[in-house]
Amino acid sequence: MKVGVIGGTGFVGGELLRLLLQHPKIEVVFATSRQHSGEPIQRTHPNLRGFTDLQFTEQNPANVGKVCDLVFTAVPHGTAVELVTDLVKTGVRIIDMSADFRLQNPQDYSKWYGYEHDRPDLISKFTYGVPELHRSEIKSSNYVSCPGCMAVTSILALAPIIRSGLIDLERIVVDAKIGSSGAGVEPSAANHHAERYGVVRPYKPVGHRHTAEIEQELAKISGKNVKVAMSAHGVNMVRGILVTCHTFLKREIVISDIWKSYRASYQDEPFVRLVRDKRGLYRFPDPKILVGSNFCDIGFDHDTHTNRLVILAAIDNLMKGAAGSAIQCMNLMFGFPETEALMTAGIHPV
Amino acid sequence: MKVGVIGGTGFVGGELLRLLLQHPKIEVVFATSRQHSGEPIQRTHPNLRGFTDLQFTEQNPANVGKVCDLVFTAVPHGTAVELVTDLVKTGVRIIDMSADFRLQNPQDYSKWYGYEHDRPDLISKFTYGVPELHRSEIKSSNYVSCPGCMAVTSILALAPIIRSGLIDLERIVVDAKIGSSGAGVEPSAANHHAERYGVVRPYKPVGHRHTAEIEQELAKISGKNVKVAMSAHGVNMVRGILVTCHTFLKREIVISDIWKSYRASYQDEPFVRLVRDKRGLYRFPDPKILVGSNFCDIGFDHDTHTNRLVILAAIDNLMKGAAGSAIQCMNLMFGFPETEALMTAGIHPV
Amino acid sequence: MKVGVIGGTGFVGGELLRLLLQHPKIEVVFATSRQHSGEPIQRTHPNLRGFTDLQFTEQNPANVGKVCDLVFTAVPHGTAVELVTDLVKTGVRIIDMSADFRLQNPQDYSKWYGYEHDRPDLISKFTYGVPELHRSEIKSSNYVSCPGCMAVTSILALAPIIRSGLIDLERIVVDAKIGSSGAGVEPSAANHHAERYGVVRPYKPVGHRHTAEIEQELAKISGKNVKVAMSAHGVNMVRGILVTCHTFLKREIVISDIWKSYRASYQDEPFVRLVRDKRGLYRFPDPKILVGSNFCDIGFDHDTHTNRLVILAAIDNLMKGAAGSAIQCMNLMFGFPETEALMTAGIHPV
Amino acid sequence: MKVGVIGGTGFVGGELLRLLLQHPKIEVVFATSRQHSGEPIQRTHPNLRGFTDLQFTEQNPANVGKVCDLVFTAVPHGTAVELVTDLVKTGVRIIDMSADFRLQNPQDYSKWYGYEHDRPDLISKFTYGVPELHRSEIKSSNYVSCPGCMAVTSILALAPIIRSGLIDLERIVVDAKIGSSGAGVEPSAANHHAERYGVVRPYKPVGHRHTAEIEQELAKISGKNVKVAMSAHGVNMVRGILVTCHTFLKREIVISDIWKSYRASYQDEPFVRLVRDKRGLYRFPDPKILVGSNFCDIGFDHDTHTNRLVILAAIDNLMKGAAGSAIQCMNLMFGFPETEALMTAGIHPV
Repeated sequence: MKVGVIGGTGFVGGELLRLLLQHPKIEVVFATSRQHSGEPIQRTHPNLRGFTDLQFTEQNPANVGKVCDLVFTAVPHGTAVELVTDLVKTGVRIIDMSADFRLQNPQDYSKWYGYEHDRPDLISKFTYGVPELHRSEIKSSNYVSCPGCMAVTSILALAPIIRSGLIDLERIVVDAKIGSSGAGVEPSAANHHAERYGVVRPYKPVGHRHTAEIEQELAKISGKNVKVAMSAHGVNMVRGILVTCHTFLKREIVISDIWKSYRASYQDEPFVRLVRDKRGLYRFPDPKILVGSNFCDIGFDHDTHTNRLVILAAIDNLMKGAAGSAIQCMNLMFGFPETEALMTAGIHPV
Repeated sequence: MKVGVIGGTGFVGGELLRLLLQHPKIEVVFATSRQHSGEPIQRTHPNLRGFTDLQFTEQNPANVGKVCDLVFTAVPHGTAVELVTDLVKTGVRIIDMSADFRLQNPQDYSKWYGYEHDRPDLISKFTYGVPELHRSEIKSSNYVSCPGCMAVTSILALAPIIRSGLIDLERIVVDAKIGSSGAGVEPSAANHHAERYGVVRPYKPVGHRHTAEIEQELAKISGKNVKVAMSAHGVNMVRGILVTCHTFLKREIVISDIWKSYRASYQDEPFVRLVRDKRGLYRFPDPKILVGSNFCDIGFDHDTHTNRLVILAAIDNLMKGAAGSAIQCMNLMFGFPETEALMTAGIHPV
Repeated sequence: MKVGVIGGTGFVGGELLRLLLQHPKIEVVFATSRQHSGEPIQRTHPNLRGFTDLQFTEQNPANVGKVCDLVFTAVPHGTAVELVTDLVKTGVRIIDMSADFRLQNPQDYSKWYGYEHDRPDLISKFTYGVPELHRSEIKSSNYVSCPGCMAVTSILALAPIIRSGLIDLERIVVDAKIGSSGAGVEPSAANHHAERYGVVRPYKPVGHRHTAEIEQELAKISGKNVKVAMSAHGVNMVRGILVTCHTFLKREIVISDIWKSYRASYQDEPFVRLVRDKRGLYRFPDPKILVGSNFCDIGFDHDTHTNRLVILAAIDNLMKGAAGSAIQCMNLMFGFPETEALMTAGIHPV
Repeated sequence: MKVGVIGGTGFVGGELLRLLLQHPKIEVVFATSRQHSGEPIQRTHPNLRGFTDLQFTEQNPANVGKVCDLVFTAVPHGTAVELVTDLVKTGVRIIDMSADFRLQNPQDYSKWYGYEHDRPDLISKFTYGVPELHRSEIKSSNYVSCPGCMAVTSILALAPIIRSGLIDLERIVVDAKIGSSGAGVEPSAANHHAERYGVVRPYKPVGHRHTAEIEQELAKISGKNVKVAMSAHGVNMVRGILVTCHTFLKREIVISDIWKSYRASYQDEPFVRLVRDKRGLYRFPDPKILVGSNFCDIGFDHDTHTNRLVILAAIDNLMKGAAGSAIQCMNLMFGFPETEALMTAGIHPV
């Protein structure tokens, strides 16, 4: 099957290319880049030396439908609307990596992203790309919107406990920690190695945009409004997210019941692993062991002192948080085995 | 003035020695080490090459009162009780770095530390060494117990808002992130560089012992029971702590009132800096810029979406979180200027 | 095909298991561990959660020949001699990861490793496991000795220029930089995160043991004695090696001739990539982009100021420097495609 | 005494300000910044919060002589010539941090820096700011040019052995490793945290500009031409340099004689420490322990296998490699104690 990538120079674009070039069913027919058009892909993504001789090209949306069956759009928030408008006309199927089609209420774009979404009709064509929640819709979708990296982690962490109805929906704290690849490839003072190394930077203590996605998806599960109190911190690593969800239980619980509800939600999921070991260094989720893998590791602990349930979830933000989820969705959309080219163990230690 | 250090090989011991050797009023007369007795201090603490020719010696508590005016005890939790018992007899003044005299209710030791404290009478001789709360008692104390590193950070972050009476005392979440020096010098699988590098390790999602100190001090301020829901994470740095305190406001507030109450608490404090800048990379506290300094940087942000106040506080855990606080207490106890040998800017960037 | 791993808890053991468990032709029948016998493999190697339910077992060399076709021995230097002696009796084929069978002159063990090798007859059964130099012997070997991590990097870097006869054989400087996984899994003060993070530690400025292997292999190529002046440094990463080989040319050269000789040596090699780009961040080899991959990237630059040729080579020390090379040898020994389960791109950025 | 800093926003500018603001004899009267003029210094250098209320101003060279006694110029290479020309007219004394006045042969600028130096007359007014070599000239200089960071490290490492006449002057290899602060504050793809973290990047395998300074100073000592074969690598830390100097001895030596010659050179130097310990993690120089200090640590080891002397030297590149050296020169120029505001121990562990 032929696929293209629009916006191939960023970290997400590079990870998509890595996965696609090693996918047995896929031929990459183009990858675009404004900045690096005409240059070999392997200069920007040197890990792909020997895996492709392609060069980046300029965008040519009108032609996309003729040359490929599926296109990934990895462009900045706010710019995907116009691009997707053009692409839809060509009949190509689309997996969009931006936020532009994640929020189903168009008003949310003004509130959380600061721009008016002028194509609400297009939003409704897109499926939110979390297979654990929307597998069957994804299978029959032509258009999938990939979730935000912290959003998918938080949603997978919280979905079962929301489903259980056991927690206070007004006091859900999501304290997220993320590596430097999450902020994108554009150089800035904020991501200069000398300024970014060794930080614990509370870059978004309140008002993180992924809140909107998380509340949207949890409300669907709950049937009620859900309020998420999110704070995001940059920490000293490149890949990885850990979310620590502090939730308060409405009544006394038996911890094994909680395990049951998580197992019920995820036992058949190929890319969700429940982490529950009494010993060892990694008895709770940690993004360290997930480098290059598509797993979301989930675990929890019960604080009897405050009747709090602390739910922990970890991913590789470029994999399950972006390119891995996208390939998983692609596999579903095109009838490939869901785990094709994705079922690899994390590299450890790195 | 003559001082000694019992337990000089750990990270806290080393930091005490660094500060003491550069303190104009102090002569270090001994530093003990079981493991490295007879070896030069500068082998273990190579940054001190050229600053001392002392060698580590064996402990000899009975003699301490004769050779020095003050002794710092930097020994493992649970072992300080006996040591201090012996030292008190010699008439020496003591600053203890362990947890053994921090909790004023002896029962708390069984609950949080798993051992019976058999000298409750000694506990009552000790002052909890946070000058911002107990300056005048420290000045007149012979015995000071240094606070836990995450405890002092959390207490300084929360004290003014507790004082204000504005927040829900049942839903205080303290999400802490700490560097590898916090876990001590003893090699283990957990702190092997290959296992510890790049982690976001939720090593204590519930039940962290510093909870007890935080609740003790906040209850004194509040006059009510305070429950703290704490989770601690190891992140990829050596020095530093950031605590993110998620608190829920009981009513609508005006953010400038919160600033006023923090300024009222801290405007004369030499080592608390309120961080409030609209621009720049460091508009919130971050331990990165505090390396080697004794400051506690405090800032906050208001989440109108959930009426949450996110209070952030950062320290260098070996300074304000241990040795720096201890020297500050020493300066107070002996009538030196409070900031002597401590008023240095953090090294940045590191 | 059935394989076993003796010594499965170290970093090399873990990487072998990762590769073997994902190899389509292989069934792992056992992995031994003295320390963790009876525990699940995935506790020690948490990246393998979901990839195996095996538990570590105790060593039982006498039985190995019955249960598997090939065994990997990943035990400390000096202890493999006795173990291999026992294993050979069972008829199993062996890939040894230690140094005990790398040096073909038994006297070299006294000189470089400080022990007498009492089974020189066994040494002669082993092939030195560098396919780029000894592919045909490896194919027909029952016993392969995997090269040292810095040795294989240096040998691959230097072999073509040695072959060319262009450099001074008395002034070959190998300045090596390596991550913390290279020193093994055993916790020590040296690898404590707080002591190992941020170092540039010249841990072996002279006398590094891998010198012996490098000289042995280069002498075979050269037909003359070769002296290597090696220095090894620990740097702040977990995986990876860069060797910077400073060589002095005996006469004026044309740089394109050097490229020709490197291409002649490596153009058909699946896991050697020549790095030659005029632009881009990675125009010279860098271990950063090799995480999890089996490539050795080689490049060079000519210093006309001193008529020096600086040859640079990078690997992932747990892959091409250990487990990857071992699997490559296994593939050759058993007639599998040489690149089976190994032809994966490095994860980037990490 | 009143001083100003032209170019105060970079890492060197920030470190100068940190040292000057804590220097008991100094009042900082201005610091300039094109980009941040009108903004508080502490926004750019947040470690200085509470140490100054100054704001950055625009450059006004014509006025400098009226408002201060000394100015530090921390501007890009090539731009200092014109600036210094203007400043000299005002009668102010100058310490220049750029390369523009380091090389005493004006032709060297075309060769190594690619520009014609049009004020060779100015060059001759400047003293090369290495007190260990030029203390008395510095004391009587109005104009001092600070050395390059890798240059001063290499010069201090090599000076005594050059003086001894024992090594081959045609085969001096300087293999340097440096942190990310060395490349300056300007954001770029090369210093993006995601691309710079975890590298061992041979960014200048040949042709590094500091070669010229090293050869200039060593030739003065030797009385002969000296050729230095230098290669520079970026490693994963922010501060610090280690240079590994591989030198080849012309005859058999006794290692204690080498120690004698190093002690003879440096025994009275306040900021050179000879590192010679048989045990301990830091028995060779390592920049890790030098954070924030002005020391150059020097050690060596003898490779009898190749009759090579490996000389190792480490510094904090922003201290002894830039701002620390500059303040040391200032202290000498103005008759302050040479170690004033500089004699601080490194922060360890960081």
